[in-house]
Amino acid sequence: TQGYYSKYNFHGLSSWPQIQFVEDKQEFSRFPTKAGRRSLSRSISQSSTDSYSSAASYTDSSDDETSPRDKIQVNSKGTNDFCVKNIKHAEFGRREIEIAEQDMSALISLRKRAQGEKPLAGAKIVGCTHITAQTAVLIETLVALGAQCRWTACNIYSTQNEVAAALSEIGVAVFAWKGESEDDFWWCINKCINMEGWQPNMILDDGGDLTHWVYKKYPNGFKKIRGIVEESVTGVHRWLYQLSKAGKLCVPAMNVNDSVTKQKFDNLYCCRESILDGLKRTTDVMFGGKQVVVCGYGEVGKGCTAALKAMGSIVYVTEIDPICSLQACMDGFRVVKLNEVIRQVDIIITCTGNKNVVTRDQLDRMKNGSIVCNMGHSNTEIDVASLRTPELTWERVRSQVDHVIWPDGKRVILLAEGRLLNLSCSTVPTFVLSITATTQALALIELYNAPEGRYKQDVYLLPKKMDEYVASLHLPTFDAHLTELSDEQAKYLGLNKNGPFKPNYYRYTFPC
Amino acid sequence: TQGYYSKYNFHGLSSWPQIQFVEDKQEFSRFPTKAGRRSLSRSISQSSTDSYSSAASYTDSSDDETSPRDKIQVNSKGTNDFCVKNIKHAEFGRREIEIAEQDMSALISLRKRAQGEKPLAGAKIVGCTHITAQTAVLIETLVALGAQCRWTACNIYSTQNEVAAALSEIGVAVFAWKGESEDDFWWCINKCINMEGWQPNMILDDGGDLTHWVYKKYPNGFKKIRGIVEESVTGVHRWLYQLSKAGKLCVPAMNVNDSVTKQKFDNLYCCRESILDGLKRTTDVMFGGKQVVVCGYGEVGKGCTAALKAMGSIVYVTEIDPICSLQACMDGFRVVKLNEVIRQVDIIITCTGNKNVVTRDQLDRMKNGSIVCNMGHSNTEIDVASLRTPELTWERVRSQVDHVIWPDGKRVILLAEGRLLNLSCSTVPTFVLSITATTQALALIELYNAPEGRYKQDVYLLPKKMDEYVASLHLPTFDAHLTELSDEQAKYLGLNKNGPFKPNYYRYTFPC
Amino acid sequence: TQGYYSKYNFHGLSSWPQIQFVEDKQEFSRFPTKAGRRSLSRSISQSSTDSYSSAASYTDSSDDETSPRDKIQVNSKGTNDFCVKNIKHAEFGRREIEIAEQDMSALISLRKRAQGEKPLAGAKIVGCTHITAQTAVLIETLVALGAQCRWTACNIYSTQNEVAAALSEIGVAVFAWKGESEDDFWWCINKCINMEGWQPNMILDDGGDLTHWVYKKYPNGFKKIRGIVEESVTGVHRWLYQLSKAGKLCVPAMNVNDSVTKQKFDNLYCCRESILDGLKRTTDVMFGGKQVVVCGYGEVGKGCTAALKAMGSIVYVTEIDPICSLQACMDGFRVVKLNEVIRQVDIIITCTGNKNVVTRDQLDRMKNGSIVCNMGHSNTEIDVASLRTPELTWERVRSQVDHVIWPDGKRVILLAEGRLLNLSCSTVPTFVLSITATTQALALIELYNAPEGRYKQDVYLLPKKMDEYVASLHLPTFDAHLTELSDEQAKYLGLNKNGPFKPNYYRYTFPC
Amino acid sequence: TQGYYSKYNFHGLSSWPQIQFVEDKQEFSRFPTKAGRRSLSRSISQSSTDSYSSAASYTDSSDDETSPRDKIQVNSKGTNDFCVKNIKHAEFGRREIEIAEQDMSALISLRKRAQGEKPLAGAKIVGCTHITAQTAVLIETLVALGAQCRWTACNIYSTQNEVAAALSEIGVAVFAWKGESEDDFWWCINKCINMEGWQPNMILDDGGDLTHWVYKKYPNGFKKIRGIVEESVTGVHRWLYQLSKAGKLCVPAMNVNDSVTKQKFDNLYCCRESILDGLKRTTDVMFGGKQVVVCGYGEVGKGCTAALKAMGSIVYVTEIDPICSLQACMDGFRVVKLNEVIRQVDIIITCTGNKNVVTRDQLDRMKNGSIVCNMGHSNTEIDVASLRTPELTWERVRSQVDHVIWPDGKRVILLAEGRLLNLSCSTVPTFVLSITATTQALALIELYNAPEGRYKQDVYLLPKKMDEYVASLHLPTFDAHLTELSDEQAKYLGLNKNGPFKPNYYRYTFPC
Repeated sequence: TQGYYSKYNFHGLSSWPQIQFVEDKQEFSRFPTKAGRRSLSRSISQSSTDSYSSAASYTDSSDDETSPRDKIQVNSKGTNDFCVKNIKHAEFGRREIEIAEQDMSALISLRKRAQGEKPLAGAKIVGCTHITAQTAVLIETLVALGAQCRWTACNIYSTQNEVAAALSEIGVAVFAWKGESEDDFWWCINKCINMEGWQPNMILDDGGDLTHWVYKKYPNGFKKIRGIVEESVTGVHRWLYQLSKAGKLCVPAMNVNDSVTKQKFDNLYCCRESILDGLKRTTDVMFGGKQVVVCGYGEVGKGCTAALKAMGSIVYVTEIDPICSLQACMDGFRVVKLNEVIRQVDIIITCTGNKNVVTRDQLDRMKNGSIVCNMGHSNTEIDVASLRTPELTWERVRSQVDHVIWPDGKRVILLAEGRLLNLSCSTVPTFVLSITATTQALALIELYNAPEGRYKQDVYLLPKKMDEYVASLHLPTFDAHLTELSDEQAKYLGLNKNGPFKPNYYRYTFPC
Repeated sequence: TQGYYSKYNFHGLSSWPQIQFVEDKQEFSRFPTKAGRRSLSRSISQSSTDSYSSAASYTDSSDDETSPRDKIQVNSKGTNDFCVKNIKHAEFGRREIEIAEQDMSALISLRKRAQGEKPLAGAKIVGCTHITAQTAVLIETLVALGAQCRWTACNIYSTQNEVAAALSEIGVAVFAWKGESEDDFWWCINKCINMEGWQPNMILDDGGDLTHWVYKKYPNGFKKIRGIVEESVTGVHRWLYQLSKAGKLCVPAMNVNDSVTKQKFDNLYCCRESILDGLKRTTDVMFGGKQVVVCGYGEVGKGCTAALKAMGSIVYVTEIDPICSLQACMDGFRVVKLNEVIRQVDIIITCTGNKNVVTRDQLDRMKNGSIVCNMGHSNTEIDVASLRTPELTWERVRSQVDHVIWPDGKRVILLAEGRLLNLSCSTVPTFVLSITATTQALALIELYNAPEGRYKQDVYLLPKKMDEYVASLHLPTFDAHLTELSDEQAKYLGLNKNGPFKPNYYRYTFPC
Repeated sequence: TQGYYSKYNFHGLSSWPQIQFVEDKQEFSRFPTKAGRRSLSRSISQSSTDSYSSAASYTDSSDDETSPRDKIQVNSKGTNDFCVKNIKHAEFGRREIEIAEQDMSALISLRKRAQGEKPLAGAKIVGCTHITAQTAVLIETLVALGAQCRWTACNIYSTQNEVAAALSEIGVAVFAWKGESEDDFWWCINKCINMEGWQPNMILDDGGDLTHWVYKKYPNGFKKIRGIVEESVTGVHRWLYQLSKAGKLCVPAMNVNDSVTKQKFDNLYCCRESILDGLKRTTDVMFGGKQVVVCGYGEVGKGCTAALKAMGSIVYVTEIDPICSLQACMDGFRVVKLNEVIRQVDIIITCTGNKNVVTRDQLDRMKNGSIVCNMGHSNTEIDVASLRTPELTWERVRSQVDHVIWPDGKRVILLAEGRLLNLSCSTVPTFVLSITATTQALALIELYNAPEGRYKQDVYLLPKKMDEYVASLHLPTFDAHLTELSDEQAKYLGLNKNGPFKPNYYRYTFPC
Repeated sequence: TQGYYSKYNFHGLSSWPQIQFVEDKQEFSRFPTKAGRRSLSRSISQSSTDSYSSAASYTDSSDDETSPRDKIQVNSKGTNDFCVKNIKHAEFGRREIEIAEQDMSALISLRKRAQGEKPLAGAKIVGCTHITAQTAVLIETLVALGAQCRWTACNIYSTQNEVAAALSEIGVAVFAWKGESEDDFWWCINKCINMEGWQPNMILDDGGDLTHWVYKKYPNGFKKIRGIVEESVTGVHRWLYQLSKAGKLCVPAMNVNDSVTKQKFDNLYCCRESILDGLKRTTDVMFGGKQVVVCGYGEVGKGCTAALKAMGSIVYVTEIDPICSLQACMDGFRVVKLNEVIRQVDIIITCTGNKNVVTRDQLDRMKNGSIVCNMGHSNTEIDVASLRTPELTWERVRSQVDHVIWPDGKRVILLAEGRLLNLSCSTVPTFVLSITATTQALALIELYNAPEGRYKQDVYLLPKKMDEYVASLHLPTFDAHLTELSDEQAKYLGLNKNGPFKPNYYRYTFPC
């Protein structure tokens, strides 16, 4: 297979059918195929940017520069079907996994409930995700439920090497390390799939690279896949739906990105906390009394405004949509045009998904010492490019913090160069990753066990009932006790006592 | 037509096809056809239960017991095509209308924007709604836009007589008074429809009685109707959808009950305020430090919990749905079974739509002095019937407030006999009624002007764009300024600059 | 004694020494001596203005116009040492007292703890307070602790006649009814004091009238008083302190108005709830999105702003004090001059204690439909007098609600004619009255039992330890459990294990 | 003077009169004289523990191990009256100072207002504080107002070397560097005071070491001091007040630690933000739904609870004081004994000032994965010592984060080894330091300019009016506009139009 790999032409990717990439630049990865995937960005931050990783990794100080591909390693059981940085760091990685398990009790609980039945017995899963302690808890859950797993990384920087070692030590075939080259990346994917006498029947993907590879390189193998579970916006919307539309998706796929539970945690609940965290870690700004304008009052904007209001900031909102505007009014925020407040605000936060929401002209009018940052979809919301002109001086004062200095000495503090603040400057709680991982596990179980015909060759959302099940697995964390319907009540409401409790179109609202 | 009316057999209603009435008892009306209509209940409260009505009406002290049907009245222009309590009270009613206009600037603004085009020129609208000052602002708006209107009341108690007089004075044919008999009710409806040489072409209904009447009694006339706008849950779900399903709806109908804007104001925003108001007016309870359990964490529950938390209460939530439960956790509420906290709570509030959520057994275990009330759908949530047993004493201590006294002297304070608290014990702000009225006006305009074929013989939701328009008409109230997309941004987002800004399936979230 | 009374010259009051009355007009009473007493005003509202009183009183519909002074009544025990409206209404009043007891468990608990020792055995207390169900619970507690009590009303309108009857029925000598004349007022006070063979040794006063009467009319009796407990600002600051300063206070007095616990409940906690209640009951205004300016950021202002912010209003603050201003900033409010926002706000609330905070010139610039009200000390904060000019029309639209109409039709809604909103338009929770009553009871016990020399002929604040005891008696209402210091911890902190836990100068802060 | 220094006997300190040191261990300093000083601890954190310092300092990577005392350095003006790490780093330090100036506009504004008058002309100030960029802004303000300054560090670790260089470069005599020995520490102090022909007349101290040194070593010089401004609790309460009590304080001193403005920012407002920051940076915990118990409901506790409640945590409070308990109830928190909730809580935060608030027995019962930290006065609140037993394993997982592991595998996460979380794991906003520095500057001006006799040989609090002035200087940061009293209003209120606006005993309340 090594030979096969060498024939791979990276640039050939751009000739893939049906896939149009939008103009957003990928934030952390060199690969255009990973453009704009929010969940990826979130996850990566945990392993690559926080202070924890330095404590939790030998890697930084490692003087071992040999490529893992050139090393010969065996684990303590004598097997060598893996390729990681250093198998000897397995013990350290094991501890990381154990710590992660503490906040992922939903998965542990799923293990316990389902391991008798082994619902994944016979499943041969290839996975391509970030390889972190949280992912390891997922993989070990899949194994406990009966699956065989082979795994690779969906991002060249995000692998926690010690965790990869710990997985390899217990026999999971992992091919991944931190700091892969492009060539390494595809080599690892290929190693993951291509094993003598082993034919994968399930795919768990985050970004679509693995799926794409199998589709292109192993078209026969692709047809034998029973289901694909895809995590990312990109993988779902720019790849699976396109493939489906073109009639070329011969496998049922599940879009776990858009499940209710995951969405709410990724956006409203997570941002409510990370806006404070991201601003504090970078600028130590005091929130009390600060005038802040939040551009966009979708879920991210709602989370940000609620948190800042609670901390004593005076918050303005800009919106294009009158319904969201009316909500902002009712929630106690003045709805303004950015130009009305640009000279007075201390902080601008963009959460729109739009581009050039903050322009150079507006940045010119901001106060000395004001802060500009982005919590929205991509790095285009603030017109950062417009600030790269000769008359402005950029001064990097901390990691992720630039002072842009005007000729008159005015400084505007730009965070993360306009990329996602919560991606770059704060972390994602393990609990949120637990929601995602549990959703992935259930989607795999559902697709693998679904009776013939339930799923066609199409892209599906997670059934409401499974969304509810993910939620219910996380309730014990909060010691929350569900009320059960009596037979009489269930009949009165026309519901099954075990759910689903809402129709699929039901709109959950999330006050904060 | 008087003769025709006399043949009408009231009980014949039960033989209507396709209509199943659920078991909830109608709260304020004697008519089974009006069962369970939330919006009706809300609106009625304003005119019938608050202290305002006493100030704003001569009726209470009126010694005139003659039935309006037996009186001969003419307005100042000499016409007599109306039937109201006392045309001489028109001036008083006019002032009420003027006061209402102050909080209904969206309708006034719609009048101004659209009266040049007269989009309702030629429209002959029959209406059957509560007749209040707010409704008058709606009717006069329709007239300003070119419509001819004839109106009757959808509820026998809710008519503000002076307002009916004021409308009649300016030439709107109103047939309604406070305290109609059943016979009066249908007589009025018939008078409204049945005028020599005048054929209605639009219906605005709240509860389905008018629609039903036309459908049954004037089948030929029914076919000439260009559109029906229906306000109530009952009218929509128990009547129009059933008719449509049976293939008998030969007219396009618009369900304005389920428009986003209306829903949110009726539930979350309104309840956030009315739970405090209703409890205070009835019990003068201090909220600070009180332990409260809110049963149900839908939008009504979210509004109630947010308000009470803000006032310093300690709030518990019960839920059957794990997703809603998880939200309650993230919003800072402990999710419990009612039995876990029943002995310690000071207040129980039901918001479930379910029945027997609070049982006699639980009421037996409540503390002395605790309060029980209902903010949910119907009057079945608290098992009030179970309290009507010989060993318990009921003591009416105020209007809408009963002390139920156990043999050991324990008192439980039951509000509104378990009916809707906000219906019975608080009022609906004019602003909320403005949202509803504006939605109705736009729905009429849309149906009346829609090109052939846009609407079939079916029930429709208000298009997202019109929902947005309703919202935008209310923004000036808050001096809120919308941001407009640039051409470049609209293109980037793939949106029209004038909206709609969200796809129809978009989930608006409403933090509080 | 009747003869004695007849010699009383009411206008002679103005010749009292040392007492200067400020210009504020008394709000409910005709008596200048009661000017500006906040707590009085609060308490009266409960009995005189809410909807409850109508349910809880026969009085309104009573056709009995005979003066109680001209009636001969005996209670069921055959005694007649009382003068009330109708002794036959005692049973109804008893029920009112029982209901009040439910929210006054601190007093009941005090009864239980102290009734073995009878700490008031031998005490002969004359009282002059509002006579309401809550006061009855206090009086009956004093009796249970051993005291003999004679009581009169401190306000001519506030007596709940049925409660007065119930007290008289069990043998408390009450002289009071609703709707006394000035002459009646002083006659009752005199009857209360002047009983053959009975010499009062304690005074409980609310407003200073009783104290004053004894001081002036019975100077010898005054010297035999062991202690005075005074409730009101007026009584304390305009009477006792003045007397003390003039060297004429020959009796120790306790100022319970300024005890920490009472102050906080009267101001911050109470106003946080009553601002919402008062606005809703009078105007049904929707709070969400409203722009409100609160003048003054003391405790009342802090309570009002916190509540309105929580309900979704956008709140501005005006202040003269930079420290309070800085707090407002940190709490998330913009600090402005009134003129900056006068044209845009929907509601103005004054809480300053100052005069002419809202001037005619500013009222001229307010929006149509805006609301103006006062939560501050007196009725001078809004310059209401300036609105009584010929070009403006006043229209009374409800009780306590006037529309002031400008020549161009603009209406400004003035509540309670600028008097205290929470006095006039909302109620005081029994729990708050319980704090006050418990404080009074403990002050009486303390003064009555204090060893010789502990209190001189001066005005005292309640000792911190007793303030703590009042608080601790109210904790069971909230099922709150105090932590106790270990011996080691008490020693470390240098505290007695039973308190006081803070030095007298300690500043308690009250976040909301 | 070098010789003089060598005779100094460090341990002789313990023989100082009147000074008793409590048992708390100093947190960051080796010097017992600095025990327990909160403000010190706060300030140090900024320079020594946050991520900023690494960006803002060459020091860490410096290979220059020579002691500054052994170096010969001159600044660009050729003077050498200073001793810092490396004068060449002055430019870097200058930028740090400029950045700090942006958030210290109150001081800049004071400079502008007062530099015409030069109110400190002739003042010769010796200072001993943390030497950070913020302090530099203070020192340069003093210089701008006419003072001559010589400065040394009050802590051996907290000096920002580049800032010290920048000050030395412009001619301020600074003697300080990061990482001094004890010997260095006193050498620097002595160098600071002891300059040929220069006699200090003012002292600005933080901790009392400088004052103590002058008092002991230069008794004649001490008598010539016109005033001492002391910042720390320790300096004030354990040293100045003791000295005063002993009749040995021959100089007026001002206690700026207890000024209202400073207190509130140091406690309530600062902790409201730093509790979230400290927990997030160390543990990345998600706040939503977490059960938290906060021990102590003083200002720090109020800040912590308000912030966590706003983030969706369920918060319990423990208290010993019934008044604080009642406040907690009214603010919506259940008041419990720690043992009642110990098994269920996720996070314990101590804010009591007490010792052994969390015992080993309680730690034994906590849940796996729970977090324990301290926001209170000293490091004794959690009985950390009890965790250092053989059966428990400590694992350092990050800086400031230990997992304490029980034999059954349970992990409790202990932050900062029980020391102050906000000291160790978060930063102090420059705005808060600005309040402190402005207070210090005004205190110096006041003492230096006070007419003979205004201040005796005693310890004073900052006059209310100056407290108000500090606040007013910070209002422009928030664009807050004070209302001014009219003459008529000032007269009505009995106030001077320019303040003070409250009597000295006034209790400011601080809602959050």
